[in-house]
Amino acid sequence: MKQSQLFSKTLKVAPKDEPSQNAQLLIRGGYVDKLMAGVYSLLPLGWRVMKNIEAIIREEMNAIGGQELYLPSMHPKVNWQQTGRWDSLDVLYRLAEDDVAFGPTHEEVIAPLAKKFVQSYRDLPLAVYQIQNKFRRERRAKSGLLRGREFIMKDLYSFHADEADLDAYYERVRGAYERIFARLGLGRQTHYTYAAGGSFSKYSHEFQTVTAAGEDTIHICAGCGRAINEEIKAEMAVCPGCGGTDFTAAAAVEVGNIFKLKTKYSDPFKLTYTDATGTEQPVLMGCYGIGLQRLMGTIVEVFADDQGIVWPVAVAPYRVHLIGLNLDDPSVRAQAAKVYQELQQAGLAVLFDDRPEATAGAKFADADLLGMPVRLLVSAKTGGKVEYKLRTGTTAELLDTAAALAAIKALS
Amino acid sequence: MKQSQLFSKTLKVAPKDEPSQNAQLLIRGGYVDKLMAGVYSLLPLGWRVMKNIEAIIREEMNAIGGQELYLPSMHPKVNWQQTGRWDSLDVLYRLAEDDVAFGPTHEEVIAPLAKKFVQSYRDLPLAVYQIQNKFRRERRAKSGLLRGREFIMKDLYSFHADEADLDAYYERVRGAYERIFARLGLGRQTHYTYAAGGSFSKYSHEFQTVTAAGEDTIHICAGCGRAINEEIKAEMAVCPGCGGTDFTAAAAVEVGNIFKLKTKYSDPFKLTYTDATGTEQPVLMGCYGIGLQRLMGTIVEVFADDQGIVWPVAVAPYRVHLIGLNLDDPSVRAQAAKVYQELQQAGLAVLFDDRPEATAGAKFADADLLGMPVRLLVSAKTGGKVEYKLRTGTTAELLDTAAALAAIKALS
Repeated sequence: MKQSQLFSKTLKVAPKDEPSQNAQLLIRGGYVDKLMAGVYSLLPLGWRVMKNIEAIIREEMNAIGGQELYLPSMHPKVNWQQTGRWDSLDVLYRLAEDDVAFGPTHEEVIAPLAKKFVQSYRDLPLAVYQIQNKFRRERRAKSGLLRGREFIMKDLYSFHADEADLDAYYERVRGAYERIFARLGLGRQTHYTYAAGGSFSKYSHEFQTVTAAGEDTIHICAGCGRAINEEIKAEMAVCPGCGGTDFTAAAAVEVGNIFKLKTKYSDPFKLTYTDATGTEQPVLMGCYGIGLQRLMGTIVEVFADDQGIVWPVAVAPYRVHLIGLNLDDPSVRAQAAKVYQELQQAGLAVLFDDRPEATAGAKFADADLLGMPVRLLVSAKTGGKVEYKLRTGTTAELLDTAAALAAIKALS
Repeated sequence: MKQSQLFSKTLKVAPKDEPSQNAQLLIRGGYVDKLMAGVYSLLPLGWRVMKNIEAIIREEMNAIGGQELYLPSMHPKVNWQQTGRWDSLDVLYRLAEDDVAFGPTHEEVIAPLAKKFVQSYRDLPLAVYQIQNKFRRERRAKSGLLRGREFIMKDLYSFHADEADLDAYYERVRGAYERIFARLGLGRQTHYTYAAGGSFSKYSHEFQTVTAAGEDTIHICAGCGRAINEEIKAEMAVCPGCGGTDFTAAAAVEVGNIFKLKTKYSDPFKLTYTDATGTEQPVLMGCYGIGLQRLMGTIVEVFADDQGIVWPVAVAPYRVHLIGLNLDDPSVRAQAAKVYQELQQAGLAVLFDDRPEATAGAKFADADLLGMPVRLLVSAKTGGKVEYKLRTGTTAELLDTAAALAAIKALS
């Protein structure tokens, strides 16, 4: 992509009405735009990040047998009355006049839908997921992309004949989540965390990523790295993972949640199956969520430095930021165009700063702000070579294109 | 995908509250589920169809320089007041208490957003698009997937310095639309149609696909195949394409719309640019829409036969429906499993009817209803070969797997 043609531009100053670091950097970089509190447009650069995150999540969901579908945002009031949440759920956007809610979550849709296809034990287990919008009437939406009123969520729902099967699948999802966060570059910062349960489970489990921007506090076990959410720390003095008692408190963001719903939603919708003996039994459910904007915001919070965003390779919108300087010199311009073409032909996603009017200083500052993993420079000084530099700070070196390509491809 | 593990099942009878053929077939086939009038869940089979449609549209939008982004569904009231449409647009879902609308279209978001990045003539032209939800308070939502209250739309918006540039881009979009409908298998049935314009253009252009289920009437020119929408036929007696006067009336569905907005939305948002002489000029806009569920429903209407759905190869959720019969015989079961594996290894999307309990009649009826382009049969009678049959009726023949693969891959 030629930067001169990119829809967005970088902004010199951070928006005043935006208190959070992640949204400030993402807005300044032209990744997102704030339409209203808690509601952000994802601009072409930001949308590429989201698509990368989405692809990793989708692969891991498919790998554990999840079948992707799409559940609507508009839900009939009757479904929410069935569970009692039409009146009780404070974040529910209600269009009372139309008897419609805009879904903050989809149990009220998926449970009655599953009932249409599950009759016998032979129909179980099942797992379906979607990557779709959620709408939540959040009173405080001041953490940028970490807490939105509208956001894209991956929500997986599983259906089981008995607790053993639910438990086994729950562990598979946990494994998938660990792979997702590792692939996104957050493996080291993310802790499997015990949290408060609901009416049907003593505890739920969260994946919490340590960052100063986090709204939660977790207590990380020095022995095994698991954590306990502050909300239940009083009742859990010993680490349930390893029995350890040495904890460190840290601010963290809940980037994922896995939850045994058991019969909480099967009961109101009478979601049952007939077992091998012909007896009617309730279907047991699990639900598993990941908020995508939150993940994007968390990655920004965790890796950003004083100059701007630092993307992990797996989610960067472009792997390479190719910067052309002295482009009024025809030979430099030809050399930059040649490198751009060669990189693209090698299958790399490249952002090419071809802007004729921008100064070198402006281009470097933009590259620091935008945060692509690799920076390549072509200028009057680089001759037939390119200057190669990592966003994380590795010293610049002069390489020929083939050597640069090899170095880029070697980045995991 | 093994059919025994598929989330959905086929239904024997059509739902009584669903008058339209497309929704009846899609519901019976387990492609979609009706959550409420005009609101459908897309089940795993249906979601695969949507993803295929989406991929074709995305490729053609990228090919004309469209940059993909994501604009929120929730819009601030002030944006809609700016254009006067908060009060005037009857299909707008308003959450008055929150000063929020749920977007039926996105001009009120994209115009002020473009204003942040467009200052000079050097920033133009620009084209951005999204494939995102729309919400419309339709009073009549009785045409199944042809008219929804919630649906996914591809909306492209373009921004230009002058009319010549808008006109040229408009023709590029027209070309892209023709390629999209041709790739979807609807080329022959779809007509470029003159329709009523708005306050800023005399005419707009629609792409209308002929089918008895259509809510519109078009008059197709015998000379050049262009059409005129009934709504302006009185004022247009001669074909603007070729001057012909011989027309045939037909019911049709509007599958796409291209529209020169000119300054209709630039004006209220003061979206301007500075030209080469330093003078402030209004930006000219175009908008171009395709509704995805409508396209899916139209494809069903156009190609379905008495037995069920007939998918064009490009959009079919699976290219091959592999049917195993006599699977209680271990050698047949092994042969079916082998063919399934070989097809998948060849990169084909295969639905494998491995259900042990279903009768041959039930499997054939389901295959007719589901509508995959190619049906392969493995049974006690086929030996080491497979029976190969096209959904469109080509007589069955016995082939070895390699020959079947070659035949499948030869289908465009």
